[in-house]
Amino acid sequence: MNITDLKTTLNSNDVGHEMCQLIAELYPICRSITGNGFRETLSIIKRHIPLKVHEVPSGTKVFDWTVPKEWNIKDAYVKNSRGERIIDFRNSNLHVVSYSVPVTAKASLAELKEHLFTLPERPHWIPYRTSYYSENWGFCLSHKKFLELRDEEYEVCIDSSLENGHLTYGEFYLEGKSKDEVLLSCHACHPSLCNDNLSGVALAAFLAKHLSPLSLRYSYRFIFIPGTIGSITWLCSNESQVHKIKHGLVVVCVGDPGQSTYKKSRRGDAEIDRAVTHVLQHSGQDYEIEDFFPYGYDERQYCSPGFNLPVGCLMRTPHGRYPEYHTSADNLDFVRPEYLADSFSKYLAVLNVLENNKKYLNTNPKCEPQLGKRGLYTAIGGQTGGKVNQLAMLWVLNLSDGQNTLLDIADRSGLPFDVIKRVADMLLEHDLLQECRETAKV
Amino acid sequence: MNITDLKTTLNSNDVGHEMCQLIAELYPICRSITGNGFRETLSIIKRHIPLKVHEVPSGTKVFDWTVPKEWNIKDAYVKNSRGERIIDFRNSNLHVVSYSVPVTAKASLAELKEHLFTLPERPHWIPYRTSYYSENWGFCLSHKKFLELRDEEYEVCIDSSLENGHLTYGEFYLEGKSKDEVLLSCHACHPSLCNDNLSGVALAAFLAKHLSPLSLRYSYRFIFIPGTIGSITWLCSNESQVHKIKHGLVVVCVGDPGQSTYKKSRRGDAEIDRAVTHVLQHSGQDYEIEDFFPYGYDERQYCSPGFNLPVGCLMRTPHGRYPEYHTSADNLDFVRPEYLADSFSKYLAVLNVLENNKKYLNTNPKCEPQLGKRGLYTAIGGQTGGKVNQLAMLWVLNLSDGQNTLLDIADRSGLPFDVIKRVADMLLEHDLLQECRETAKV
Amino acid sequence: MNITDLKTTLNSNDVGHEMCQLIAELYPICRSITGNGFRETLSIIKRHIPLKVHEVPSGTKVFDWTVPKEWNIKDAYVKNSRGERIIDFRNSNLHVVSYSVPVTAKASLAELKEHLFTLPERPHWIPYRTSYYSENWGFCLSHKKFLELRDEEYEVCIDSSLENGHLTYGEFYLEGKSKDEVLLSCHACHPSLCNDNLSGVALAAFLAKHLSPLSLRYSYRFIFIPGTIGSITWLCSNESQVHKIKHGLVVVCVGDPGQSTYKKSRRGDAEIDRAVTHVLQHSGQDYEIEDFFPYGYDERQYCSPGFNLPVGCLMRTPHGRYPEYHTSADNLDFVRPEYLADSFSKYLAVLNVLENNKKYLNTNPKCEPQLGKRGLYTAIGGQTGGKVNQLAMLWVLNLSDGQNTLLDIADRSGLPFDVIKRVADMLLEHDLLQECRETAKV
Repeated sequence: MNITDLKTTLNSNDVGHEMCQLIAELYPICRSITGNGFRETLSIIKRHIPLKVHEVPSGTKVFDWTVPKEWNIKDAYVKNSRGERIIDFRNSNLHVVSYSVPVTAKASLAELKEHLFTLPERPHWIPYRTSYYSENWGFCLSHKKFLELRDEEYEVCIDSSLENGHLTYGEFYLEGKSKDEVLLSCHACHPSLCNDNLSGVALAAFLAKHLSPLSLRYSYRFIFIPGTIGSITWLCSNESQVHKIKHGLVVVCVGDPGQSTYKKSRRGDAEIDRAVTHVLQHSGQDYEIEDFFPYGYDERQYCSPGFNLPVGCLMRTPHGRYPEYHTSADNLDFVRPEYLADSFSKYLAVLNVLENNKKYLNTNPKCEPQLGKRGLYTAIGGQTGGKVNQLAMLWVLNLSDGQNTLLDIADRSGLPFDVIKRVADMLLEHDLLQECRETAKV
Repeated sequence: MNITDLKTTLNSNDVGHEMCQLIAELYPICRSITGNGFRETLSIIKRHIPLKVHEVPSGTKVFDWTVPKEWNIKDAYVKNSRGERIIDFRNSNLHVVSYSVPVTAKASLAELKEHLFTLPERPHWIPYRTSYYSENWGFCLSHKKFLELRDEEYEVCIDSSLENGHLTYGEFYLEGKSKDEVLLSCHACHPSLCNDNLSGVALAAFLAKHLSPLSLRYSYRFIFIPGTIGSITWLCSNESQVHKIKHGLVVVCVGDPGQSTYKKSRRGDAEIDRAVTHVLQHSGQDYEIEDFFPYGYDERQYCSPGFNLPVGCLMRTPHGRYPEYHTSADNLDFVRPEYLADSFSKYLAVLNVLENNKKYLNTNPKCEPQLGKRGLYTAIGGQTGGKVNQLAMLWVLNLSDGQNTLLDIADRSGLPFDVIKRVADMLLEHDLLQECRETAKV
Repeated sequence: MNITDLKTTLNSNDVGHEMCQLIAELYPICRSITGNGFRETLSIIKRHIPLKVHEVPSGTKVFDWTVPKEWNIKDAYVKNSRGERIIDFRNSNLHVVSYSVPVTAKASLAELKEHLFTLPERPHWIPYRTSYYSENWGFCLSHKKFLELRDEEYEVCIDSSLENGHLTYGEFYLEGKSKDEVLLSCHACHPSLCNDNLSGVALAAFLAKHLSPLSLRYSYRFIFIPGTIGSITWLCSNESQVHKIKHGLVVVCVGDPGQSTYKKSRRGDAEIDRAVTHVLQHSGQDYEIEDFFPYGYDERQYCSPGFNLPVGCLMRTPHGRYPEYHTSADNLDFVRPEYLADSFSKYLAVLNVLENNKKYLNTNPKCEPQLGKRGLYTAIGGQTGGKVNQLAMLWVLNLSDGQNTLLDIADRSGLPFDVIKRVADMLLEHDLLQECRETAKV
């Protein structure tokens, strides 16, 4: 079974619901860029795919960076003068600024306020804040609750630890016919936030699961890492292997109701850029294609000039463009199985293009071959869409001169890749095409 | 006399009327891809140009194809029970499906209907149908007449022959200064159909006739062939000579009232593509330029990947986009002398560009030469359009650096090729330009 | 002090007013392509910059041209029968056709009219006319006055001389670190006309004056020449040095109220073309970019194919597109200090791009460097526009791979060059960039 078969037979709605279940399971865990929450997350993903877990010690130099201390947290609260937990980590792990140092203190309202973060324009939502690289502590809360705070003495407790330990990440390698790799990367360092980025975690996990039994052209590498420091650590640890990555995608924000958005790789015309563009153009839905910019997710590292990998980012609404982003409103209600399923289908369609985007040679390049005597017109006439297939066949024959991949032919003809691939298979069966041994252009 | 002189002096309206007369003469003949109708057609064209007629035996292998048996027909009819010819080949040769095998039979209405073809949406028109490569027979008739058929016994007769013989085509070669060739190709295999393609036959014939006495830069090759199998046969027979073709056009559908349409060669940026585009842009009329697609007429064969010749197709309304296409309504009323004349003028303008599209070197490349002291401002001032000519002169001088042909200069300046050519001649006379010996870029 | 410092500190409004004063001082002088008016003009400019004055003898061959005789004029008039000066050179030097030969004669109205030029569509304005290369004489006057002329005998006097002498031009060379030059060229051959081109003379003079004290990357060459024959003479005299010109601008029509217009060099994609385009795109004002055409000012000579110098023309309203052009209405009221100041600022901004448009290498090309630990986020956070600067830093780091200049980075990022330059300086200070020794691409 290959990816085209999978694409044809898999019910993506079922996968959408399974992804939702995984997201729901992962949602309550308090993750950060290091610590036990990240480990617990990987152990749940391992129920679906045989992830290899890596531990990198704190203090390890990774290019210009250093792996930070490991952060863990057991409890945190702010109590009022009556001893009531008015901010309680047990209600939402967003309440504590990630990487807050341990603290036990009494504080006046004025003192406390210096450590409080709210969203005045969204008074019911709790913001998500971090302080990875400068030691500090803080609480996030709804602006509504903030306004209710009275001038009294508060008891503050953050029962956290920030100590030498490890940065943890998960990796799943799926061997294909070629050593050339497709990289799928997602960050898994956010606490109770669904679209950014449990949606990406779930999509990557189920993509890995469903690709596992297939006969694959490329090898696939799925990595579940903390954002920024994770991709830097991974690139540093795998520097000598990175050249194998021929295509890649950062999987992020794939469960919201927005239209699909693709941010191109730094190269801008890499095969992955063209493959995603083709899939979105033929999706029948609105979409947006954006040029690369050096901001966003881990594509910043993959596309740094010393690597310049062909890695883009296929998402729905990009970070910062939906109000729920990095707030408590990016919750289980915000990501929906139908959008996850749609994103999953598009990822599968993109990988289907990559797997099948080969070059062929027309074995009868001088004039058209006589399709009729081979029953190729008839064979086609029997199907609906026969006229389209006939034109597709002529396009494949005309452009299979050793210069054009099937994606080139699909783009020039304006026909969907799947149609081009199907007729190329027919022509191959009739020895009217042969595979071009030369490496496909990148 | 050269082509520019011809273009200036020829009355294209006269040529339009002569083309109409030739079309009227050829119209009644029952042509097919082989047979005596095709031979008779060539013999009539021979009255205008000394065509060389080639005969290729049935069974000859031509690339992936085989030259078919020769088809001829004397008579055909369907008689009703009263012995009346209700479908009569003598009324219209479209009534018989081309390449119908001989048949003499009695048939019920139900049996007969399996061999009848009509156009329900155009109830007064007879469709045109063929069955070249699978042995069959049939009649075409108006849907109106079809509806009048009663349930009775019919007598069917097709007095045809399908036997080993020859495929016939005509060729006219006009030798110019260079062995490099311009190919003009038209199919002449359709029976009583005017726009597709007696219009093309007439235009090619009169173009050949009027070019014959000229002093020409290129050699010209006109071929009158059956569609598809004809170009395949010609390419196979002339494979070693094909590299001489530097530019080419398929001449088709040039007599209808629609706007001019140019379908580019597979290369897309060949000199012929740019020349035709330039002529249409400056025609003062609406027009359409289409990218190549591997469907249509004999450009499919010329532009197959093993040849990839710079051959486009200059027509008016493309095949299939006018309702009269391949019906009895594509008759003598449908093609008009004024449209034929207009098409002829455009072909002549395109060939004029090709003939004169040379590169020159400015002999005073450093700063402008002083045009005034040579009377070139004055000379120009005396004409209307002097300002345009002056600017054209400056463009030609500025861009004649060995990189640009006159067409490049015309396109960059936005001025008509004719103006650029005229001022280039003036500058040549004053030794301000010299011809660039290097081969003009293709 | 470098050009960026100058750009930050100079009050361009002050410069605008100084330019106006210089224009007012030069306005009354009767200039032509040779003669004492041109010399007097240069002597006034010399009060601001140490111009070197060159004298080229009449009769000198300069490429296809010859330096003409020198023309001077003392007085000219037409007197009516009552001895009244009805056309009087002392009122406006536009009254005499430039290069008019000496004449003393009686003339009837009919005879006189053959030598009179007016603008019927602008009845109050005096046109500007010349007859450099054919010996003739004439008077220009308002159409209103022309209509008042009665049929009587007139006395005509032009007290001019046309004799062997010299063509005069001024040159100011400012030595920078590199021998590579930026050329700024303006014609100074027009009599009492302000926008065309005393505005250019003033802008070039003040640009030279303000650049003089700076530490400069490039050497700068300012030339004040008569139009056409002046640039031809200069190019001929300096043919062996011309290769040093890496960028250039013709300074013309910079004081009118119209939007800025840039006419590209013949190359079309020279660094000067991109620098000016960038400055206009980020000016916050409407503007127009035009492709090169071989008509206009001295860029015609600089961009002749034998030189093909990267010289564009940055103006406001181009010649011939404002009704005041080459009439007495192009006077001191037509050019305004605010428009001169705005043009001056844009020239300075363009030169600032050229001076700073270098390539750098990211010294940490693999993954992003950790900006936070260097205080670069903090440093920035303290400024307004911190977010923009942060993104700018990431762009500079991402694209500093040895392929991109700062202008390339500014254009790709859509950020202003000044921002890109500022953050590049910060990154250089922190050793995150190093200058790329390879020659910047042109």
